[in-house]
Amino acid sequence: MACERLNESSAKKLLAGADSFLFDCDGVLWDGRGVIPGSLETIKKLKALGKKVFYVTNNSSKTRDGYLQKAKQFGFPATVDEIVCTAYIAALYLKNKQFKGKVFVVGNTAMGQELDAVGIAHTGIGPAPTVGGIPDWVDLKWDSDIKCVLVGFDADISYMKILRAASYLQRPECLFVGTNEDTHLPVNNSATRIPGTGTMVIAVAFPAQRKPVIVGKPEPPMFEELKKLHNLNSDRCVMVGDRLESDIGLAKSCGLKSMLVLSGVTSEAELPKPNPAQATGSDIPVVPDFYTNCLGDLGKFI
Amino acid sequence: MACERLNESSAKKLLAGADSFLFDCDGVLWDGRGVIPGSLETIKKLKALGKKVFYVTNNSSKTRDGYLQKAKQFGFPATVDEIVCTAYIAALYLKNKQFKGKVFVVGNTAMGQELDAVGIAHTGIGPAPTVGGIPDWVDLKWDSDIKCVLVGFDADISYMKILRAASYLQRPECLFVGTNEDTHLPVNNSATRIPGTGTMVIAVAFPAQRKPVIVGKPEPPMFEELKKLHNLNSDRCVMVGDRLESDIGLAKSCGLKSMLVLSGVTSEAELPKPNPAQATGSDIPVVPDFYTNCLGDLGKFI
Repeated sequence: MACERLNESSAKKLLAGADSFLFDCDGVLWDGRGVIPGSLETIKKLKALGKKVFYVTNNSSKTRDGYLQKAKQFGFPATVDEIVCTAYIAALYLKNKQFKGKVFVVGNTAMGQELDAVGIAHTGIGPAPTVGGIPDWVDLKWDSDIKCVLVGFDADISYMKILRAASYLQRPECLFVGTNEDTHLPVNNSATRIPGTGTMVIAVAFPAQRKPVIVGKPEPPMFEELKKLHNLNSDRCVMVGDRLESDIGLAKSCGLKSMLVLSGVTSEAELPKPNPAQATGSDIPVVPDFYTNCLGDLGKFI
Repeated sequence: MACERLNESSAKKLLAGADSFLFDCDGVLWDGRGVIPGSLETIKKLKALGKKVFYVTNNSSKTRDGYLQKAKQFGFPATVDEIVCTAYIAALYLKNKQFKGKVFVVGNTAMGQELDAVGIAHTGIGPAPTVGGIPDWVDLKWDSDIKCVLVGFDADISYMKILRAASYLQRPECLFVGTNEDTHLPVNNSATRIPGTGTMVIAVAFPAQRKPVIVGKPEPPMFEELKKLHNLNSDRCVMVGDRLESDIGLAKSCGLKSMLVLSGVTSEAELPKPNPAQATGSDIPVVPDFYTNCLGDLGKFI
């Protein structure tokens, strides 16, 4: 199956078949230069049609309130219930599992705040410089209340944090949750590589030799938690994003319709070719149902 | 092929067919409790027979001189030329490649000293705390002399180090070398996980999206550099170790004979079963030529 460029007929069909639209933000609604032309108008038109709209980001460094401010700065008519960030989803995921115990966090202030908001105890946020050597580390004291290691973006990541996290993960009953696995953050300077949250997740997973549950795109929890909250019908949801792996991947893992926009990191040349007959498993390309230059193209058909 | 327990006949054949013996140290010569009984006598007997003896460790936190002191504390009759550590091999690997430029090091004092010893410039060792945020990081200044990122054990690993390393690795001409990929260090406390060098290596490799050359066991450079230095004949070398993957793996990747001892991390139950006919690629088990309880068993046949 190859992807199909959005046209008037398919856009009208897409709109008629959907109640809810999930939007990745950076590269879809805005980018480093500001609002992507046409995106704001499209969101407003969708809302005027009565469609539900959600702002869905793997960013784990902001609370929902923090991200709401960002959306509002760009002029988007968002409410806090429409904001879906991984710090929030991680907290909600644990709450909905009826998690009892304390969380060891390798993460940031927003993650601590979202855990606080759902009443889950945690070990706090901030630097943990390395002190001592192996003999000291072997004799470290361990907190018996820790029942989960949660990893997200953490610019204060250190050897001591990794050591503690990997040690707690030696307990088979200790949950292991990661917000997302992004390799790097997009910036307009090819000489600089800003490591993404996947760096922190793999730095803990590797010595622990454990595989985390990832709540962010493309893994299902991000949508599954949202679905429960808003009683969504997967068949009537459209995911719009600029990344095949995370955004369109989420649509595929949750059975949503999907549209890729070319206003972010993916170019038309990178779109999946017709599915080779012999492709199996992870070789099967992630194919959006539709693609178009930018979100404004959809708005034009409303 | 299943492995064969060492007996008098195979021991004599092994001794007659070998000029050089390479020993992993921890779990073979000594462990947390001290010298493993019989290992010192065996080393002395091999030397008396005129065999070359090498102490081969993935430990990247000691110079050859530092590790020599450790071997001597246990009473082993070692000389510096017999000591093979990954900090040293990494420096030698770059020297033998006629490396020109400066090395960005994510590592420890010993790695800096071994680079100094072969006259290779580097960026220095020590803490690099995180300061600023994304806008500052995007504008960081980059050193045009950096032509290699070298990663080894670094208890001061930080986000800034990872960011700098991953950024230098965006240059296609920048070499990427890791000392070893051990998941954790062995300690006598199952509640504590001491992350190994593989943690630092993967924390840089993941955001950089590059694969390093690993100089330590089981990768070939460790033996290849030693072979050049001492004019060794692979066919007449025996690798003795307690780990299938790293020690016996090195023997397999370099065409050496191999013997596993059960005095370290591998139990008899973990020995590879007869090779299933359908095994291919990475499914083929790493099988030592011989195994025995401890190194002293070999000494008994001398």
